[in-house]
Amino acid sequence: MKEKRCMLLPGPVYTPERIRNAMSKQMVERRGEDIKQLSKELIRDLKKVFKTERDVLFFVASGTGGMELALVNTLSPGDKVLALSCGNFGDRFADIAVAMGLNVVVERFPSGKPVDIDCVRKILQKDEEKDIKAVLITHNETSTGVVNDLEAISQLTREHGALSLVDAVSSLGCVDIRTDEWGLDVVVSASQKGLMSAPGIAMVSISPKAWEAVEKSRYPKYYWDIRRFKKFNEEKSLTPYTPAMTAMYGLKEALNMVLEEGYENVLERHRLITKALRAGLEAIGLELLVDEAYASPSVTAVKFPETIDSTAWRKALRNKYWVSTAGGLGDLIDTTFRIGHMGYIGREDIITGLSGIELSLREYGFPVEIGTGVAAAQKVFAE
Amino acid sequence: MKEKRCMLLPGPVYTPERIRNAMSKQMVERRGEDIKQLSKELIRDLKKVFKTERDVLFFVASGTGGMELALVNTLSPGDKVLALSCGNFGDRFADIAVAMGLNVVVERFPSGKPVDIDCVRKILQKDEEKDIKAVLITHNETSTGVVNDLEAISQLTREHGALSLVDAVSSLGCVDIRTDEWGLDVVVSASQKGLMSAPGIAMVSISPKAWEAVEKSRYPKYYWDIRRFKKFNEEKSLTPYTPAMTAMYGLKEALNMVLEEGYENVLERHRLITKALRAGLEAIGLELLVDEAYASPSVTAVKFPETIDSTAWRKALRNKYWVSTAGGLGDLIDTTFRIGHMGYIGREDIITGLSGIELSLREYGFPVEIGTGVAAAQKVFAE
Repeated sequence: MKEKRCMLLPGPVYTPERIRNAMSKQMVERRGEDIKQLSKELIRDLKKVFKTERDVLFFVASGTGGMELALVNTLSPGDKVLALSCGNFGDRFADIAVAMGLNVVVERFPSGKPVDIDCVRKILQKDEEKDIKAVLITHNETSTGVVNDLEAISQLTREHGALSLVDAVSSLGCVDIRTDEWGLDVVVSASQKGLMSAPGIAMVSISPKAWEAVEKSRYPKYYWDIRRFKKFNEEKSLTPYTPAMTAMYGLKEALNMVLEEGYENVLERHRLITKALRAGLEAIGLELLVDEAYASPSVTAVKFPETIDSTAWRKALRNKYWVSTAGGLGDLIDTTFRIGHMGYIGREDIITGLSGIELSLREYGFPVEIGTGVAAAQKVFAE
Repeated sequence: MKEKRCMLLPGPVYTPERIRNAMSKQMVERRGEDIKQLSKELIRDLKKVFKTERDVLFFVASGTGGMELALVNTLSPGDKVLALSCGNFGDRFADIAVAMGLNVVVERFPSGKPVDIDCVRKILQKDEEKDIKAVLITHNETSTGVVNDLEAISQLTREHGALSLVDAVSSLGCVDIRTDEWGLDVVVSASQKGLMSAPGIAMVSISPKAWEAVEKSRYPKYYWDIRRFKKFNEEKSLTPYTPAMTAMYGLKEALNMVLEEGYENVLERHRLITKALRAGLEAIGLELLVDEAYASPSVTAVKFPETIDSTAWRKALRNKYWVSTAGGLGDLIDTTFRIGHMGYIGREDIITGLSGIELSLREYGFPVEIGTGVAAAQKVFAE
């Protein structure tokens, strides 16, 4: 039953057949008309999900590479930045900034809670000298399943004057992000999360204010130099170095699917599925890490019941019931597991996943009344 | 007839169905056993084509990214390096080094000629203070179709004491490179050239001497930090950030094909095909850019006949005769075009390509006795 595995992963995610077929296409001339046309359409469609009319460029990199390029293009060594972290990927953004020689003030919020807006307000208000050049924010914290209030953080950042550099790796395509409306300066995402494609492409939006910062940046750079990408894109609809063509084929097909369904419908589907999943998990008697008020519509962290052998149980869930989930990360590694529900995820996946969780938990001695979780989710769908 | 296009490209290249099918596989858990096993086998097989028993690591990047990471991991800002260039990609390696703030001495040899060994000897002998920390070398210069004498350059570099940093992007998989035997310190390649896969993976081999340099490097880095990749690989058979899984599937299948055919047979096939192609082109009356003594077995640059409208002709070759070639690069852009013959290229491609060249040249007024080029190539195959 391996082929029918229920993949509830936080990325790379289940990749629909249409996208995988697109990725099995033959190569074309790297500087030819086909690839120019594909680049144009890719950027046009990416702008729709970024909700921006500003520049969007794409790179051969994982999301982490995209985060690094956001820093080295807009800042200079020694610049002060405020890193707002509420989990493993917020920590990573801060770690990259430290490794790149920035002067990093890390404000770490407890795992499972969002970035506290009042706290951000105070820090930025106290910075009267305007030493803070950029605020680093994780939109959707994949390690905990928290969505931060990006609109509010961006508002405070703009009032202060710093740049907002946003990790939207696991939000674009499944969590609403309004790049222009919220005034986000650099938004970084990747191909293998909400957009259901092969990993290998990082996509980045850049505001006019960010472009001004790019001109002042003193970081040595070549591969990450976005000015070169902008120039090649504007003059030739090409990238300066060989792009990840197969991943481009896949990403374009993913965008076709998203836009055919309607992006707002896709976002609504994620919200509905999250509601059903959370209802099901709670009916089973499992404790969720994150409060509904700031729960992510793309990943849900669940606390292990204390009474079961969590490692063996999650293995059984995978190998006997064919439901793949992800382990905890960072300080949550021993206490939680994560259910990904981003991309090509429907009602069926939630029902199958909850059923597997019920049956396997019962096998491991956790008291479950069979069917309660599934029924609770069904009720949400029936509404 | 688009599907039967004869793709004589210098990369990304024609990707055989087996590899494309492999790339259409479903995603798996990013930290699961399947991906660990794949990583192990990928590195094991890559070592066979690198001809090394030392470390090989892989990254989400194009070849250019691999070149940048070779520099920032083994050197420090301001270090003096000798960049040996005989074409566009040698120039690029030097450009990256300049952009990254190294003190770059560029020795540029004429396009179409190889790096002159005596010249390298003199430069390195004159550097009695051992200021030169690394020598940057292009193994197979894709813009001209020249193979440099890497063994001799490496020998001189070792005698001097500098590190050899080798761009093998378009040689690995189709031009013999003996990493350990020749004592190469860092060898950089990519997935979309000799190894016939999707672009998106850069592969790098690292010698013990290079690892010593890594420990002393003062470049700020995170995404490119190979120590982190070594640690994750040794401890978990994983990469620290999401790998390009689809490209990994493809690259593994490509290595399966190469090792099934026998790597030495693959190299011999490239040499035979090059001989036939060159014989055919010369019989047609075309002038080759590069002397046989240092001609690349993976790409051949051909001078445009002065009497024809070269742009219109190459378009006709592509659109009427379905033979795709590549344009010239750098200072050769107006005077040459390039025929790629790397990867999954057989006798049939050479015959089809030469036939298309004959027919289209004749149409554009170049005096060709139909069949001469094809016959000359056939004679090589008949030997």
